Amino acid sequence: MTISVNLNADMGEGFGAYDIGDDDAILKIIRSANIACGFHAGDPLTMRRVVQRAREEGVSIGAHPGFNDLWGFGRRRIDMHPDHLENLIAYQIGALQAMAACVGEKVTHVKPHGALNNMAAENAEYAMAIGRAIKAVDRNLIYVALSGSEMEAAAVRLELPLAREGFCDRLYEDDGNLTSRKVPGSVIKDADAAARQVVHMVVEGEIISRNGKRIPRRVDSLCVHGDEPTAIELARTVRQALEAAGVKVVPLTEMSLG
Amino acid sequence: MTISVNLNADMGEGFGAYDIGDDDAILKIIRSANIACGFHAGDPLTMRRVVQRAREEGVSIGAHPGFNDLWGFGRRRIDMHPDHLENLIAYQIGALQAMAACVGEKVTHVKPHGALNNMAAENAEYAMAIGRAIKAVDRNLIYVALSGSEMEAAAVRLELPLAREGFCDRLYEDDGNLTSRKVPGSVIKDADAAARQVVHMVVEGEIISRNGKRIPRRVDSLCVHGDEPTAIELARTVRQALEAAGVKVVPLTEMSLG
Amino acid sequence: MTISVNLNADMGEGFGAYDIGDDDAILKIIRSANIACGFHAGDPLTMRRVVQRAREEGVSIGAHPGFNDLWGFGRRRIDMHPDHLENLIAYQIGALQAMAACVGEKVTHVKPHGALNNMAAENAEYAMAIGRAIKAVDRNLIYVALSGSEMEAAAVRLELPLAREGFCDRLYEDDGNLTSRKVPGSVIKDADAAARQVVHMVVEGEIISRNGKRIPRRVDSLCVHGDEPTAIELARTVRQALEAAGVKVVPLTEMSLG
Amino acid sequence: MTISVNLNADMGEGFGAYDIGDDDAILKIIRSANIACGFHAGDPLTMRRVVQRAREEGVSIGAHPGFNDLWGFGRRRIDMHPDHLENLIAYQIGALQAMAACVGEKVTHVKPHGALNNMAAENAEYAMAIGRAIKAVDRNLIYVALSGSEMEAAAVRLELPLAREGFCDRLYEDDGNLTSRKVPGSVIKDADAAARQVVHMVVEGEIISRNGKRIPRRVDSLCVHGDEPTAIELARTVRQALEAAGVKVVPLTEMSLG
Repeated sequence: MTISVNLNADMGEGFGAYDIGDDDAILKIIRSANIACGFHAGDPLTMRRVVQRAREEGVSIGAHPGFNDLWGFGRRRIDMHPDHLENLIAYQIGALQAMAACVGEKVTHVKPHGALNNMAAENAEYAMAIGRAIKAVDRNLIYVALSGSEMEAAAVRLELPLAREGFCDRLYEDDGNLTSRKVPGSVIKDADAAARQVVHMVVEGEIISRNGKRIPRRVDSLCVHGDEPTAIELARTVRQALEAAGVKVVPLTEMSLG
Repeated sequence: MTISVNLNADMGEGFGAYDIGDDDAILKIIRSANIACGFHAGDPLTMRRVVQRAREEGVSIGAHPGFNDLWGFGRRRIDMHPDHLENLIAYQIGALQAMAACVGEKVTHVKPHGALNNMAAENAEYAMAIGRAIKAVDRNLIYVALSGSEMEAAAVRLELPLAREGFCDRLYEDDGNLTSRKVPGSVIKDADAAARQVVHMVVEGEIISRNGKRIPRRVDSLCVHGDEPTAIELARTVRQALEAAGVKVVPLTEMSLG
Repeated sequence: MTISVNLNADMGEGFGAYDIGDDDAILKIIRSANIACGFHAGDPLTMRRVVQRAREEGVSIGAHPGFNDLWGFGRRRIDMHPDHLENLIAYQIGALQAMAACVGEKVTHVKPHGALNNMAAENAEYAMAIGRAIKAVDRNLIYVALSGSEMEAAAVRLELPLAREGFCDRLYEDDGNLTSRKVPGSVIKDADAAARQVVHMVVEGEIISRNGKRIPRRVDSLCVHGDEPTAIELARTVRQALEAAGVKVVPLTEMSLG
Repeated sequence: MTISVNLNADMGEGFGAYDIGDDDAILKIIRSANIACGFHAGDPLTMRRVVQRAREEGVSIGAHPGFNDLWGFGRRRIDMHPDHLENLIAYQIGALQAMAACVGEKVTHVKPHGALNNMAAENAEYAMAIGRAIKAVDRNLIYVALSGSEMEAAAVRLELPLAREGFCDRLYEDDGNLTSRKVPGSVIKDADAAARQVVHMVVEGEIISRNGKRIPRRVDSLCVHGDEPTAIELARTVRQALEAAGVKVVPLTEMSLG
């Protein structure tokens, strides 16, 4: 039986006259795009262009909602009432759905951005608020959730389609959590090392912690980055290694998700 | 045969801690609500609450998109490329669609706000950009357009459902245009005078200009205001007068539109 | 020797078409106004009008900077790098200085708003960042700091003019902290009870905790509210009680501060 | 007698995570920097950094206020009440003054940005509103105004220090106005041609129109651009040509202005 996995990346993170990241390069590598929705980044025109480009490349599209903090690029933690958060997310999903409709495309997943993603991974109230927003807008949308996080638990509780996400370029602790970025070497810069970690994760269904411990962990989608040339090179290497190992790299919409 | 007409009003124009207008009072009078979408006014939470309230009152809901100018409350004219405008509108419609989905409701019309409405009435490029946005997001959405304006022409050209809008409280010139607000008396303050104008407009299908000229003019929907107690009183009087004249006041979705 | 104290209130918290609070009523009671600077509330026009009104009433003016979160009215905690915060504050102070210059007035104090004030009271990094901003822009500006808080400590460390602030309408714990708003009765609604607490605080230089413990605590300025008619009534009662007890109610600029 | 002229450029036009233009390269060429103030571009941190860099290079600094339209980068014309505009400008000047104070620097000029600059060149009400803002905040600030424009007239009427601005890279009509960008060739791409135009303008005090007509025109400051490598190269060539012609390139603060 063929093993499949998805590669996703954040895209459309420009704003007006501003541009960031090389969307065209990363679109050739990934199969699902997380598109900024106008709050931490993105504007209506940028959103539409990115949806159009993703469609041309056969890349499935998802909403990438963030906090209402363009100055902070959605990287600042904001302490928000879960009801406000739920509606903030629903609003952004709807906005992207409309931009997708403009080019005959459909939004099929949701992945939170930046500080919101980090908070929701740890905080059940945030994770559930995001899940409720998804369910209220369209219960067929896939909730892309860090594997093992509160977001995964929320998706399960709300019976939403769930894609468990893993990291190509980060070390893991024995308990399955990511090693803090403050620990030297916690971010994998070497493309081949990242490729080895990813292939093992996908083919064997387990993570190997930085101490060598084997942790069973299902991963449906791997997050790559397009903001630097080296990140794009790492993403390309990861994809080639997966394909060389016989893994099929597919859009989220072609995965059989739990 | 019974004559029907719609009454619409702008709603949900608060923002966060700020509130403006008496939405609850006006909801009892109108049959269709134009809901601010977060750019000139409105926020995700406010939008959801207003959709919920409209639903409870059996009032149909529409997007009320405006310029990205909260400080100016969408009342400042902005010279925007039609492509930017088209996407600005699509984005706002989608955002409201999602908030409506959250409470099991559907967006069924679109009416531009403030300076955008004024510009689109005169400017074919703006009128068409708004029409293209509507058509791209959902071609069944009703374009609420000032009767006789470029917006009406755009809706016809794009074969969109069209509701021609008239004013309760404004005088008209012999050429069918509104008398400028700068002309003393151009805004009708007297509720009974407004009611007489409206009943004639709806029952006879014509406007009588301030010089007494009869201008044939189809009107499907009448705009009323809820921002002041006197405006609400005027709206109530207008509705009662219409009903006393045997006119049925219905949601836009129950009108047979051209 | 006459005892003096200052009364301050937040003002100018409208935005564009939106208004909140009764600035004119509260201006008759207080002696120093904390003016929103355009981030959590306020806009250039509102700021100028409020400065003008304060000047007419002989009320000294201060900057009331908040987080960049108009939707949340500055009430959401944002986890911001202290360097960003320092510049956020400096920017807002400068903006108000210019609006003050337009009417021949000078900014003489700074008091943070909402969630920023709450965070800075507890968090030395935030308190110092605010203090550095004040010092960098104008070292003669008075830092209005909750008495006993990290802000007070920061003002002392940075050798800034300091006004220690107390509350009229809140109960205190034995350790001198405010009783949480979640505790029933922690917010004093009775104007006479508030007046008694305040007069004791100012005349005796001590707070009496809700358990009856006496806590020595210097208070230079008392915060009152103008957002509701009852709050304005409470403020008026407090002022009258202070004057009846022989206390002089003066602008911050007439206090001898530590 | 030595002839002096100033070179100015727009700077600090990033926002948060976004960057635009090569500020470091252009700072080596110009003598006065127009710094974005947070509305069309710029944020408190970026502003402070740019002021610091300008100070290090001995470049004088000015406010570069724009419309409140980050999405449109201040390039969209907005129809704003002159009173609103006046306060919008004052606010931005003050904000930059504070950021300058943070690094021990002073704001010495004001030049409007983008659509605001274009509108104010033609529209006396806008030009005067900007002038009143400058005068209200600090009457010693230099108003940088397109030579021959309504802004120049406003500066004269308000008795503000005035720097008349000319263009390096644009053709002129016989009436002294800029040739429309829509006319092919109206933007000079050839660095040597730009240099010849500029040297003649500065040394002879006249512009030669694209039809060869000589138009007497005083120019105190020349605007150059740093947003593209070719623009920077053109700026460098212009400066070298001026110096080769014996012209001294100085900060606005060292010019003797009318």
